[in-house]
Amino acid sequence: METIGWLASVLTTFSFVPQAIKVIRTKDTASISLWMYSLFTVGILFWLVYGVMMRNGPMTFANVTTLVLAVIILRAKIKNG
Amino acid sequence: METIGWLASVLTTFSFVPQAIKVIRTKDTASISLWMYSLFTVGILFWLVYGVMMRNGPMTFANVTTLVLAVIILRAKIKNG
Repeated sequence: METIGWLASVLTTFSFVPQAIKVIRTKDTASISLWMYSLFTVGILFWLVYGVMMRNGPMTFANVTTLVLAVIILRAKIKNG
Repeated sequence: METIGWLASVLTTFSFVPQAIKVIRTKDTASISLWMYSLFTVGILFWLVYGVMMRNGPMTFANVTTLVLAVIILRAKIKNG
C-alpha cells in the first residue's frame, strides 16, 4: 500500500517538470491560468508547512520540489502573461 | 495544525477550477503540457486509490474533485492540442 502512496507522490510532484520545461523553452504561458498557479503555490506552501510540522521527510521533500516547480511556472506566467 | 492541512487540501484541489474554466471558455491549451496532465492524472488516480484504501474521507473527496478537474483539462488538451 505504501508503494501506491509513493507512486502517487512521485507522479504528482514530477508531473510539473515537463510543464516548467515547456514554459521556459517556449516562453508561452497564454493558456495557463494565473489564478490556478497563485492558489496552487499558496496551497503547496501550506502542504510544506504541514509536512515540516509533522516531521514527515518524504512529504517535505515532495512539497519543496513541487513548490520550486510551481514558482517557476508562476513567475513565467507573471512575466510573459 | 489540522487547519493547515485542510487549507492546503482546499487550495491545491480548487486551484484547478480556474484552469478548467479557462480551457473550456477559450479552448486554448497551446501552452499547457500534455505530459504534465497525463502524469498528474495518473498520479491523482493513485492518490485516490490510496485514500480509499486508507478509508480517509477528506482525502478521497479531495482527490475525486481534483481527478474530475484534471480530466477536463487533459481532455481539452487532447482535443485542442
